[in-house]
Amino acid sequence: VSKGGDTRAAILGEATRLASRIGLDGLTIGSLATQTQLSKSGLFAHFRSKESLQLHVLEHATARFMDAVVVPTLAAPRGEPRLRELFERWLTWSSEAFPGGCLFISASIEFDDRPGTVRDYLMRNQRDWVDMIVQVVRSAVAEGHLRGDTDPDQFAQDLYGVILACHHANRLLRDPAAHTRARRAFEVLLAAVTAH
Amino acid sequence: VSKGGDTRAAILGEATRLASRIGLDGLTIGSLATQTQLSKSGLFAHFRSKESLQLHVLEHATARFMDAVVVPTLAAPRGEPRLRELFERWLTWSSEAFPGGCLFISASIEFDDRPGTVRDYLMRNQRDWVDMIVQVVRSAVAEGHLRGDTDPDQFAQDLYGVILACHHANRLLRDPAAHTRARRAFEVLLAAVTAH
Repeated sequence: VSKGGDTRAAILGEATRLASRIGLDGLTIGSLATQTQLSKSGLFAHFRSKESLQLHVLEHATARFMDAVVVPTLAAPRGEPRLRELFERWLTWSSEAFPGGCLFISASIEFDDRPGTVRDYLMRNQRDWVDMIVQVVRSAVAEGHLRGDTDPDQFAQDLYGVILACHHANRLLRDPAAHTRARRAFEVLLAAVTAH
Repeated sequence: VSKGGDTRAAILGEATRLASRIGLDGLTIGSLATQTQLSKSGLFAHFRSKESLQLHVLEHATARFMDAVVVPTLAAPRGEPRLRELFERWLTWSSEAFPGGCLFISASIEFDDRPGTVRDYLMRNQRDWVDMIVQVVRSAVAEGHLRGDTDPDQFAQDLYGVILACHHANRLLRDPAAHTRARRAFEVLLAAVTAH
């Protein structure tokens, strides 16, 4: 990796952490310049516009999500072990990846009714992730670990709810039992579709 | 109600709808002036500061939530009927109360790591709501409708997840099956703790 590439990655890392705290929409070239003590003109030369900066941040966060969640999940054995890996990796990601909570969760809320390239990116990104959950559930059915009548789309929405409720209870309510309850909810969801 | 009171309520209604679309943090006296075509100085005389405006908007939304969800829930017969009323009213609220999605959900995400009076208000408001869910579950146990070993805090977090996942699937992913799945998830949660 070139020095320029390192610098760019470091700036994007800083921008992503900042966005997790102040919101992706609050992330501007100006607020990033203040945070990094780099010149606005230098950052502008890199990123061109606020929207382009936001898209670069989402791409950066997606690459980190791939490394932290998607790749290890696909490395786990197919079926129930892979579903368990997906859940644990996702739960850890949603609470630990960024100082201000999961950027995808906050950006989804911020941009859900703002048409544009940022929302388009988020929709694709989130649909891809839901599709991956569905696929992991399907393969667990195919392996004979889950019941044949399991509804993978229902499971994916329910699992998303477990993560979102934990994020809410953990971050706003500062509830120390949030994670324990999330793991219990996952076990109940899984038990309900486990083949006997 | 005085004419002044009507005007104030109308302005707060407009401010609340605006906040649901652009985020509570994006709501300023300036953006509200543009939206309502009222003078900034007049609005400033009413609300004094951005933070005070945000608190008034949350109080206004809370009063609406009381009317739309809390009061009808408490009017339903204790036990399972009340729990069903709570869920249906909340589900409807979360998708229909505001044009830009549920203000409490978006504001919780925006303010979860911004110390101050707005976050304090949201924490109290959300803890009160979770306490109410817990209380309704407890009364359903007392009525003999739910099992004696039901964990009301677990149920409350799980139910919050059903609402949040529906909100995400509905608003960002525009998934037409989101509500059907939310109702199915509620029935599964309920069935798991129903006394036989």
